[in-house]
Formats: sequence, structure tokens, C-alpha cells
Amino acid sequence: MIDFRSDNTGRAAPELLDALIRANTGTALGYGADPWTTELQERFSELFETSVRVFPVATGTAANALSLAAISPSWGLVYCSEAAHINTSEANAAGFFGGGLKLAPVPGANGKIDAEALARTLAAIQPGQLHRGQPAAVNLTQATDLGAVYRLDEVRAIAEVAKARGLKIHMDGARVANALARLQCSAAELSWRSGVDILSFGATKNGGALCDAIVVFNAEIADGLAIQLRRAGQVWSKMRFASAQLMAYIENGLWLRLATQSNRAAARIASGIAGIAGVTLVAPVEANELFLELPAGAMDALERDGFQFYRRSATLARFVCRFDLTDAEADALVASLRRNCQAPAKAAE
Amino acid sequence: MIDFRSDNTGRAAPELLDALIRANTGTALGYGADPWTTELQERFSELFETSVRVFPVATGTAANALSLAAISPSWGLVYCSEAAHINTSEANAAGFFGGGLKLAPVPGANGKIDAEALARTLAAIQPGQLHRGQPAAVNLTQATDLGAVYRLDEVRAIAEVAKARGLKIHMDGARVANALARLQCSAAELSWRSGVDILSFGATKNGGALCDAIVVFNAEIADGLAIQLRRAGQVWSKMRFASAQLMAYIENGLWLRLATQSNRAAARIASGIAGIAGVTLVAPVEANELFLELPAGAMDALERDGFQFYRRSATLARFVCRFDLTDAEADALVASLRRNCQAPAKAAE
Amino acid sequence: MIDFRSDNTGRAAPELLDALIRANTGTALGYGADPWTTELQERFSELFETSVRVFPVATGTAANALSLAAISPSWGLVYCSEAAHINTSEANAAGFFGGGLKLAPVPGANGKIDAEALARTLAAIQPGQLHRGQPAAVNLTQATDLGAVYRLDEVRAIAEVAKARGLKIHMDGARVANALARLQCSAAELSWRSGVDILSFGATKNGGALCDAIVVFNAEIADGLAIQLRRAGQVWSKMRFASAQLMAYIENGLWLRLATQSNRAAARIASGIAGIAGVTLVAPVEANELFLELPAGAMDALERDGFQFYRRSATLARFVCRFDLTDAEADALVASLRRNCQAPAKAAE
Amino acid sequence: MIDFRSDNTGRAAPELLDALIRANTGTALGYGADPWTTELQERFSELFETSVRVFPVATGTAANALSLAAISPSWGLVYCSEAAHINTSEANAAGFFGGGLKLAPVPGANGKIDAEALARTLAAIQPGQLHRGQPAAVNLTQATDLGAVYRLDEVRAIAEVAKARGLKIHMDGARVANALARLQCSAAELSWRSGVDILSFGATKNGGALCDAIVVFNAEIADGLAIQLRRAGQVWSKMRFASAQLMAYIENGLWLRLATQSNRAAARIASGIAGIAGVTLVAPVEANELFLELPAGAMDALERDGFQFYRRSATLARFVCRFDLTDAEADALVASLRRNCQAPAKAAE
Repeated sequence: MIDFRSDNTGRAAPELLDALIRANTGTALGYGADPWTTELQERFSELFETSVRVFPVATGTAANALSLAAISPSWGLVYCSEAAHINTSEANAAGFFGGGLKLAPVPGANGKIDAEALARTLAAIQPGQLHRGQPAAVNLTQATDLGAVYRLDEVRAIAEVAKARGLKIHMDGARVANALARLQCSAAELSWRSGVDILSFGATKNGGALCDAIVVFNAEIADGLAIQLRRAGQVWSKMRFASAQLMAYIENGLWLRLATQSNRAAARIASGIAGIAGVTLVAPVEANELFLELPAGAMDALERDGFQFYRRSATLARFVCRFDLTDAEADALVASLRRNCQAPAKAAE
Repeated sequence: MIDFRSDNTGRAAPELLDALIRANTGTALGYGADPWTTELQERFSELFETSVRVFPVATGTAANALSLAAISPSWGLVYCSEAAHINTSEANAAGFFGGGLKLAPVPGANGKIDAEALARTLAAIQPGQLHRGQPAAVNLTQATDLGAVYRLDEVRAIAEVAKARGLKIHMDGARVANALARLQCSAAELSWRSGVDILSFGATKNGGALCDAIVVFNAEIADGLAIQLRRAGQVWSKMRFASAQLMAYIENGLWLRLATQSNRAAARIASGIAGIAGVTLVAPVEANELFLELPAGAMDALERDGFQFYRRSATLARFVCRFDLTDAEADALVASLRRNCQAPAKAAE
Repeated sequence: MIDFRSDNTGRAAPELLDALIRANTGTALGYGADPWTTELQERFSELFETSVRVFPVATGTAANALSLAAISPSWGLVYCSEAAHINTSEANAAGFFGGGLKLAPVPGANGKIDAEALARTLAAIQPGQLHRGQPAAVNLTQATDLGAVYRLDEVRAIAEVAKARGLKIHMDGARVANALARLQCSAAELSWRSGVDILSFGATKNGGALCDAIVVFNAEIADGLAIQLRRAGQVWSKMRFASAQLMAYIENGLWLRLATQSNRAAARIASGIAGIAGVTLVAPVEANELFLELPAGAMDALERDGFQFYRRSATLARFVCRFDLTDAEADALVASLRRNCQAPAKAAE
Repeated sequence: MIDFRSDNTGRAAPELLDALIRANTGTALGYGADPWTTELQERFSELFETSVRVFPVATGTAANALSLAAISPSWGLVYCSEAAHINTSEANAAGFFGGGLKLAPVPGANGKIDAEALARTLAAIQPGQLHRGQPAAVNLTQATDLGAVYRLDEVRAIAEVAKARGLKIHMDGARVANALARLQCSAAELSWRSGVDILSFGATKNGGALCDAIVVFNAEIADGLAIQLRRAGQVWSKMRFASAQLMAYIENGLWLRLATQSNRAAARIASGIAGIAGVTLVAPVEANELFLELPAGAMDALERDGFQFYRRSATLARFVCRFDLTDAEADALVASLRRNCQAPAKAAE
């Protein structure tokens, strides 16, 4: 079996677990008052080239929902893509932690928000209309839920529209490493220098284990968030074991190397299937995910060949590349797709 | 420095981290659909001698607040001890997750609820008084927040009073291993056989790292809770790393051995200070914590001697024993207490 | 000035205020334990031909949000029309009272939900997908927010689809009197006999003052709702003044006579404008509202003629008829529309 | 039967209903954009001698809970008297609207908070203790829930302690007219000049019908509150009927005349029972309520004599005077108390 179901079905990078083991020494105060978590603040501030606050959390859902609750009042509207993970896959955690805040989908291609569409949406809401929710924030999934990556100018265009109305920007970076590896820009450029106020910093999908983080660029948000995290049950008493992992994750660019590997595997597959008649890419492959329209019956055949993946519909399949996927495994998928998709297509002629 | 500040300032038991490392192999579905988490259900069902549902969660606060939200409507009253951790130390997470449910302290000694006091409290609330919150659940901290342990007959007496009014029972078992090690009864006897519906199963304070669990004995609670956990950001996508730890924790009685060690250290200290004039135990030492009334000035002296602990007030100090505290460390504390506490007491003569 | 802005800009029916005045005698227990509120239960049970629970509330937003919170868990999805009042105009009160429940728009014409579209939506959600909200309820606005009225067979088709998946039905009856006056069926037929579990019973828009109501057909919902209303600040201590109004509202069919008047005025206008080239009805006029596409500039001209109405966009205007709108006023609007809409249309040729 | 059960069992003052009737003319925009509500802002600003925002609401519970939610974050602690209405009688509406904010009782006599006790409580909470709720606000019930009235210096002493820590002050003025009638000071002196940020302005218990109000002295609170009221279902579309009542309520001092009447009745009873051996006042009678310790059996006898009142326990009864209670009714109660309480007392000798 070769597993393309998700990047969270895979292993953790050994470097993170080694760091966790090394942290198991001596005693240290709980709830983040330990030396590891203190150092984590410094390492991430260096990484982002500004003073940031980093809060390790258990999951991406917690990172997203608590970030949004930190930048929106409970009567706020949070604009997001229709396909956004917060909108489709988190059981409305944002509405729950946000005291009833409301997600408002905005059109766009490939899982992105279109800046002009956002501008039109905001223009239609006049200040003082109390019977509506009040525009409060914008959520960007980077990379998007369809495997595309916002370019810097796209992020900035959205941020410009948003900031003109006083909205704050949250980036759901469950796959931010994949986006960075693609864009080849700095973490600072992709985040606060482009207008991002708060970032869900994903590690789990890219070699992590049991922790992600929230990175806060806007200092006035951080104090309230610190308390909310406590009452949300997201502050480990033995925080050192999370902080140590997160430091190992970014040390010497590990996170970007891991993301480069999974991105390359996805690009290799995308390149390999370019000539196959029955296979259509739904969105550009810019990170580590491929969304493929396949002929009816092809999915059964792929599974018989030993491939695991998600069926989004009868003809739409998702393939996700993990950091430790081998070239041979990628090539095997291409071969199976060629075998199983062209044939039925011919048969249909 | 010898650290008595908390049982969460210490290391994880190596067996748990070894299990975590061993789980880092192959691919597995996320969000608890992995073989480790499946096996976890079986191991805990064996441990508790009944079919249970086990949900790994990041923290004890999450375990407590989500457990209470699962057994109380948002207009419910949850009875607890005045000293209960949920009442004093979790930033009202219970009120947050419970949609505004209210904690209602009930008197009792040594951090316990007194069954008769609970009965009197309930008797004063007539059904149909809609202007009040509605009695919904009882929370027991086992071991208590003052280091005592409910006896089985005490748990059962409270459960009997509660069940007569249709209330459910939540046990906050942040230190349930210490309680069990003290009581020498089975996990089943302490929980569902005594009326407990849902248990916060603590591991962190007793050698764990990054995970605790909720154990559900009442099947009708479990399905809603499973969704709430998801939207609460408490369902790890790589759940295997938590489940593997929890299995190692209970394997071959490890958890009880660890708790026995910390209980013994506390008992050793309690025994050692029995004859010291200036030192008074605030509550019986039945688990791994000691709450001591000390003479003014003694705390400064203890700190100068290299001991770390929490000051609850100018004359009340808490000392917590970790599973890996040595006899020598325990004896050193006794010696320092004797040195620093008797002297001022003499001076006062 | 002639006011078509809304049916809540108008007067209360004198009969309701007379009843309020008559209720100002003697003393009576508060919070609904008075004889008026007791009798209200009986009058509404007669009206609906079954035993119902009636809860007077201050506003339609309260009626809607608390009704939905009563039939959906906090992780529920509530299906509604894109144009539904709960979705566009209540500041996400449903999400607030529902602890983060989520509104999910379903396509349909004229502000309705289409039963087949609902069936397709539900078919795409498999049980056990915990990362999604869970289908819980359907909201129907009757009459719709575009002035149309669900036929009985339409309500029943939706209810059938919903009940097959265990969903409950809420009817937002802010204009239920107008719908009933249109359909000429009984209140029972439009509600519980067609599958409705809970009804927001609007009075304010149809001659009421300061109160609407929730009518509960499903007994198991009522007890929890009664407490929620109390903590929602929706239980008047001098409830008699609301209950007396609601009884007067339905006595001898007053509510249906009032609705018939406003419906007739709207129909009179719809008939009058049938031949005007520049005016297009956006939806069928089946209650007391008209949504008109008008030529650019026509709205300014209408306002200069002394008509008040809402602009939904540069070319879409809403006109609402109150129960006390006169034929002359209706005819004046038609004349102004003819004058101001045909002329510019010609000029544009 | 003579009714002493509550001041909300009685009639509305005719002046308020007359004003409601007079407001039933012409059309006016909904949701508070009507001339009555605009004028209400002016009248109350005159009354309070400063620019205030007034929001009519349906009930005192709504006024209290939404006021507290407006001045406390969801992780806030709100200090109140143990006997406070928000703590005992509103089904934890404050916790619900406040997203889990927590009420923290502070000791004091006669239903008051003691300023020094508050100071001690705050001194024990150090900034930065994230595991606790964070001190946010103080709630004062004026008159108190035991019938006493805070003197101005008492309010100011509490406000001084609170403001030194950045806490805001909410006054629950369900009986603020009674307090003012007692204190003979201005509305400004009792509220913002003494440090009050937001006031629940009660009318219902003192001759109102279906509406109370929130008065905001701190402008930065008002905008968010305006939206919260909307989503809380507390903004009537025909607001004029509430605003007209509230203007009539304060016109020419009506509210103070009504309160003076009920206060005088209570004082008359207090004076009348001064010499009765078996009757003990639990708190000073400074407003319109009397809390009496009575001999066992006396309550039954009082009821047989035709008096209605609330039993707080087997020997504690509450008697509340309405604005329209007559001297004869007050004297009848005194006579019955003398008859029924002294006799058993003698019998016990």
C-alpha cells in the first residue's frame, strides 16, 4: 500500500522526536514558564525578523479557531474561501470559540480569495448596519485547500483591501512551509510584511507530532489570547516537550527541507501525468497536494493497485505527498494513473 | 535546587517516550482512526473491566471542561469543592465550554465535597425554579486539591445523593493514579462501580507528556463528546503518538508504580515532620502533596536552603512529590523544615 | 409621505393595546405564572388544534435564535435559504444563542429552500464525519424574505426530506399570518400537521407591539427552552401585558383580517403595475411585500413623489404594505411607478 | 388577599400606558431609529446631567447580563454580593451572555459588597496569573437584594478600590428609583459621578410594563453593546412603544414619586412592627422590601389572614411593597404580624 491520503497519516521527522527526548531532563516550571518556551520566543522572533509571540497548541483547529476569536468580536464576520479548511472541516470551531462569529465565503480560484471579490463584498456593507454581522477579519489558507499557493502580491492585495476597512488578517498556515518552499521568500515577507496579523503555524502535516503553534505579530492581540488558550485547554503544563519540537522543526531550515521534499514529489507526479488523457488537474500543483478529475472506475483500479487516497466525489480524488514519500512511490502512482485512466478513456471511444 | 513546586515540573517517564518513538513507523489514518487508538479502547476497557470510550486530549483543563460540558446543559449547576481545580485554577474553562454553566461550591473537609452538605444544598432547590440554574452534575477531584483522597464509601455516598436527583458524576482524576495507589482498589471500583459517569484521566502529573484522556462510562455521552472534542481542537491528526503513550502508561501497572513512588515520598516527608513543633499539616497526606502551615520566615529559609515550592499565603506552603523524587531529596526537605521551623517556634517561647 | 419601508414602521392594532390596558388590574404572579399566560396556552392550543406551549418573547430575532438553539446541538448545521432573515439580518443571533451552530444556505427560488436541493445536500454528508458540523435542523421563512409563500406541499416535501435524516423543522413565521391568509388553510395544517416542530409566531409586523411568541409543538423541546428563555432575558416579570396582547391578536381572527388587508394592498399594487414596461417583479407577490426592479433614476423620482421604501441595490427596491395601508395609498404608488418608470424607459430608447 | 409577593406582581402606572397609547400614531423607522427613541436619549441625558446612551430592553435580566458582557472579557471575574440577583436569580444569564465570565461573591452586610473585603480579594490576585479568571468588573445591586441601600460614600469607596485595578462598575438598578428616593441625591451623583460605568435602569418593579433600560455612561462601551443587543434579540422593531414609556416614567419625577410611595409603605410597616417581640428585621428597611424572621407557624397564620408573600426559609419571609399599596393594606399587615407573631412567642415562654 502506498499512502496518499493525507500528510497527517505519516511519520514525524526524527529530529523533532529527538528534541523531545532531549528535553526530558531536570525540572522546569509548567505552562510555558520553562527555558525551552522562552528560547522558542527568541528562535521564532529571529525566524520572522521581528519580535513575535509563539504559542504552542495541540492542533491546527485550535490554532485557527483561537486565532480568529482573537481578532474578531463575537459579532464579527470572517471572510474566507468557500473551500477553506475552517469552513469545511473544523466542525465550526471558529463559530464556537468566537462566541458565534460567522464565516462568510468569498469567491476566488483554486481555493483562494479574490481581492476584488472581497472589495466588492465589503463595499456592499455600509457601516452602522447593526442587523448584520460586522466585517472583522480575513482568513487565508496558505497553501490553499486545493493545493495552490498565494503569491506575495495576492496576499498583499487582499491585505490592502482588508486593512482599508480595519479588518485583520489571519493566515491558516497548516501548510505554510510548503508555501514558503514554493515562493522562496522569507517567513517575514509571507507574513507580517504582507499584512498578516496572526498565523496558524502548522507543523503536524510536515513532520510534526502533537503540536502546532500560533504566531502573533500584533502585540495587542497576544495578552487576551494567552488567557483564552489557558481556558481553551491548550496550554500544556509540560510545555517544554512542545517547544523543544518546534525549535527543532525550524532549526537549520529543517521545516523547509521537509516541505521541499513533499512539494517535489507532488511536482514530479504532476509532471508525470501531464500527458495522460483521462486525468485533469483541478488546480495548479504548487504545494504537496494534487486534486485530480479521473474517469469513472479509475479510482477502484488505483485502489486495487495499492494506492490510498481520498475520494472527494465519484470522479474527484485528492493525493497528498508526505515529506518522506520516495521518488519510486511517486513514479508508481504516475504509472498506475497512466495504466488505469488512459485505458478506460480509450474504451469509452 | 530540589523542586517541590509541582508534579508537572518534572520529567516524563521514559517508558512513555519510548512508546511514542516506537509509534513513529508507517502510515495510519488521522484523527484517531489509527490502530494505536483502536487498541487503546481495548486496553482501557480491560483496565476498567467494562466497555469504555477513551479520548486522548492535550490537557487536564480540556479533559475537565469538556467532560462537564458533556454532562450538563448550558444552564446547569455543577457542584464542586470550593478548592476544586476547576473552580480555582482553570480560568473558568468549564463555564466557557459549557456555554455558561455555573460552578456551585459545596462545603466539605480537605478539599472534598461532603455528601450531607450536597444533600442539603439540593434539598433547597425545588424543581421548576427556572430563575436558578438547574442542578446537573457533581465534580469530585480525586485526589483532592489539598492532597486528601476520597474513600470509596465517600464517593458512593455522594453519587447516591446525586443520582437521586438525576445528576451525573464527573471525577477530575488529574491525580487518580495517586488515589488508586492509596486506596488499593481497582480502577473500576473507583469509577463506574461507584457511580462515576465520566473521568478526567490524568497522566501528565504522573510521568506523562503532552496528553491526558477522558474516559467515558456512560455510552450516551460519548457521541456528542466526540464532536465537541473535534471542534474544541482536541483531536490530534496524529493521534497515534498520544494513544501509544497512554497504553505504555498503564501497561503492567506502570502508572500505579509511578504514583506509589510519589505517594511514598510524600508519606516519608509527612512522617519525618511529625514531631516538628512549628509545622502543621493542613490536610491529611494521602497522595503526593503536602500543605504545610509554617512559621513566618521559614519559607525564606527553605528557599535559601535550595528548596522550590509554592507559597499559598504568607504561612501556607505546598510541596508536591514527583514520581522520581529520591528518598534523599525527601529527607533533605524534612531536615530543612526541622532546622528552619523549630527554631522560630522556640524563639516564641 | 407614504411609508412602504417596512411593516414594522407602522402602528399597532388598537385591539392589542386595548387588551394591554385591560390587563392592568389587580396583582398576579410574575414570569408567566399569571392567569393571562395560562389562558394564552389554552387559546393557542385551540388555534393550533393540539396542545402547544406558547412563550411570549420580545422580538422575532429572539424567537428565531432561541428556537434554533432548542432544536440543534451547538455543533449542528441549520439549513436555510440564502435570503433567510436569520442568515442576512439578525447579526448571527442563531450562532450566538446556538453556541456556534452554523447556518448552511440551500438553493431555491423566491427565498424558498428547494426540497430536492436539500436532499442532495444531505446526501453528500455521510454520518460520522466529525470534522463537519452535523445536520440538525431546517429553517423555513414563511412568508419568504422575497414575498413568496410556501405551499403546503412544498413545506411537506421539505419536512419529509428533513425528517428522514432526523432533522427538526423551524418555521420563521414573522409573517405567518400573511402566509395563512394567502393559503387559506388552518394554522395546524401549516405547522405541525406539515412537520413543523417549532414556530416563531410573529405579531409585530402585523399590528403587534413589543411582543412576538414561540410556539412549540414538540413537547420534549419545551422544558429546556423555558430555562433558556429565562437566562436569555426573554421572560417578562409582568408577562400578562404580553399575553393579553397575543390573545387579542388571534381573537375572532383579527390577525388574519389584518394580514388579509396588507396582502390585498400588495396584490392591488402588483396588479396595478402589471402593464408598466420598466417595472419587473423579482418574485411573485403572495404576501404583503413587493420586490421591484426599477430603471435607474426611478427611485429618486419616487422619493421626490413622497414615497418611502428600501433600496436593496441601485435598481432593486422593496415595498412593504402595512395592515392599515389604504387603497388610495396603494393606488398612489402605482401611479407614481407608472409616471416615473415608463418615462425614463422611453427616454432611454 | 393583599399581595406582598413582589413589586412585579402589580399594575403598571397608568401614565406609562397612556404614553404607549399616544405613541401609536403615524409611521416611524424601526429598531430605535424613531423620534421617540431619539428624544429618549435627550431626556435621559438631561436626567443624568451628561451625555448618555439609553437602550430599552425587555427585562432586567437582559439589562444585567448584557451590561456585564459589555464591560468584561469572557475570561473576566465579576465581583458581586453573595445575595446579588445576578448570582441567585438569573439562571446564570451573565455567564451565558458573557461567554463564560464568572461571578465571584464578595462578603458584606445586608446584600452589599464591603469595599475592604473587595480590596483584600483583589490584593490576593496577582497580575499575570493566567490560570485564574481576570478581575474585570464589580456589580452593585442598588437597592440591595435584602432591601438596604448603598450610601454614596459606600458606592464611591467600592468604585475607588475597583478603578485602582482597572475594573469597571455595573449598577443593577432594578430598584434604583427606590434607592434614589431614599438617598435624596441626584441620578448623576448615584451613578457616573460615583464611578458607575453602566446602569441597569429598572422600571418594571416600579410601575413599568414590558421594558427596562441600559444606561451607558462610558461611551466606548456603547457601540459594541448596540450590536450585542441586536443579536441578543433585545432591539424591538417598534421601539417607540418602549421609549415612550420610559420617557413618561421619568417625566416630572413620576418614577421618584412612585418609589417614594412604596418606600413609605415599607417604612410604615417597619415602624409598626418595631415593638413586636417575635419579629426580627434581617436587614435595615431602606427601600420597599422587608425581610423578616418570624416564629414557626406564623407564616401559615399570615396566609390564613389573606397575605401573600415569599417564604425564603421556614422562618424567613420577604414582603415587598408596590407603589400602589395603601396605608390600610400596610397597617393590616402590621396588625396581622402582631396578632400572629407575639402570641406564639408568648406560648414559647
